[in-house]
Amino acid sequence: MSKVEIVDLKANVLEENDVAADKTREHLKNSKTFLLNLMSSPGAGKTTTLLSIIKLLKDEMKIGIMEADIDSDVDAVKIAETGVRSIQLHTGGMCHLDAGMTEQGLASIGMDDLDLVVLENVGNLVCPAEFDTGSVKNTMILSIPEGDDKPLKYPLMFQVADAVIINKIDVAEYFDFDMDKAKAAIEKRHPGIPVFPICAKTGEGVEAYADWLRKEVKEWIG
Amino acid sequence: MSKVEIVDLKANVLEENDVAADKTREHLKNSKTFLLNLMSSPGAGKTTTLLSIIKLLKDEMKIGIMEADIDSDVDAVKIAETGVRSIQLHTGGMCHLDAGMTEQGLASIGMDDLDLVVLENVGNLVCPAEFDTGSVKNTMILSIPEGDDKPLKYPLMFQVADAVIINKIDVAEYFDFDMDKAKAAIEKRHPGIPVFPICAKTGEGVEAYADWLRKEVKEWIG
Repeated sequence: MSKVEIVDLKANVLEENDVAADKTREHLKNSKTFLLNLMSSPGAGKTTTLLSIIKLLKDEMKIGIMEADIDSDVDAVKIAETGVRSIQLHTGGMCHLDAGMTEQGLASIGMDDLDLVVLENVGNLVCPAEFDTGSVKNTMILSIPEGDDKPLKYPLMFQVADAVIINKIDVAEYFDFDMDKAKAAIEKRHPGIPVFPICAKTGEGVEAYADWLRKEVKEWIG
Repeated sequence: MSKVEIVDLKANVLEENDVAADKTREHLKNSKTFLLNLMSSPGAGKTTTLLSIIKLLKDEMKIGIMEADIDSDVDAVKIAETGVRSIQLHTGGMCHLDAGMTEQGLASIGMDDLDLVVLENVGNLVCPAEFDTGSVKNTMILSIPEGDDKPLKYPLMFQVADAVIINKIDVAEYFDFDMDKAKAAIEKRHPGIPVFPICAKTGEGVEAYADWLRKEVKEWIG
């Protein structure tokens, strides 16, 4: 019985969230700001990837970063060192960001003068995929040490992503990760999705992803 | 408003779950079966760790493995190849196992003749930590590529764990992972918790963890 109640509430929550997310996109459109929602497992390299993207894009657009975590501020501190605007969002134990929390973050960071805001979501391949944050596009990072079978196990994450980054290619030889198998599994979950193998630490391959992001931002902010 | 409703329901769900989990432990006690709940991020090496534990313990106790995933059966197939009883639980999109789902799994696997059942939880550092599965003990695996800052970001997971395995020590030199820093952060979250650095692939260090588990199982089943 209680199981049915939970499911209904979840449907309502998701429905309300979708409405809020559409409103957020309207705000973003009006303020000519692009919001990217960046998702991955814990430790897949979201922050390091962001650091290398910032390096490539910060001279051509105004960037702000919202770091979401259950606790700590280690990531926001790292980002702040690059000179771009950075805030830390604490989710209070929540396993994902929803549109309301994202909207609060956007109000705090002050998006009006920003071209690109990146939301670094909580490290989690399940729940963040269910909640539309109001982002214009989603990117998910799969890292080599996690294995090539992740698209089989976490289907929704790969379905809601608009681009997939495969990070830590520098250590590929030490892991049983079959790049072709991974790409085929991703393609099966989300036909036509662009996949970018990179090494965030050295910057290898990041330019190709930055090109994709640059084009998406330009299309949105006009 | 709806936010308050969610929190209340969650509290109720967690309360109901705690009651169910205590019942599961009673069933386990009566059937002289030990249930271990194994948690980690996606790709931290739960299944490979299990394979190396099975190798060490399968001649001295009857083992059953319940593989939980949102989708796919790749892990259960790997486990079945070792000859121990193995079932796959599909969570239907759920990001964690609760006590009711675990009880269903135990009924399916048939625990009466098993000494040790391991539940491989969904790869996720957040939600599984919130739901008592009815396990006798919890173990969480942190893998080197995820980084030494995870205890700072996912506090509850380290608080509910009874032992921490640090996996993939064979690739430690390719990652900026400070073992002392990780251990100190874990100790801060959960004073006195045992920490086992291992390489699940080669079996290095697994004997020490198997000793811990063997002792816990004996204490429970008498």
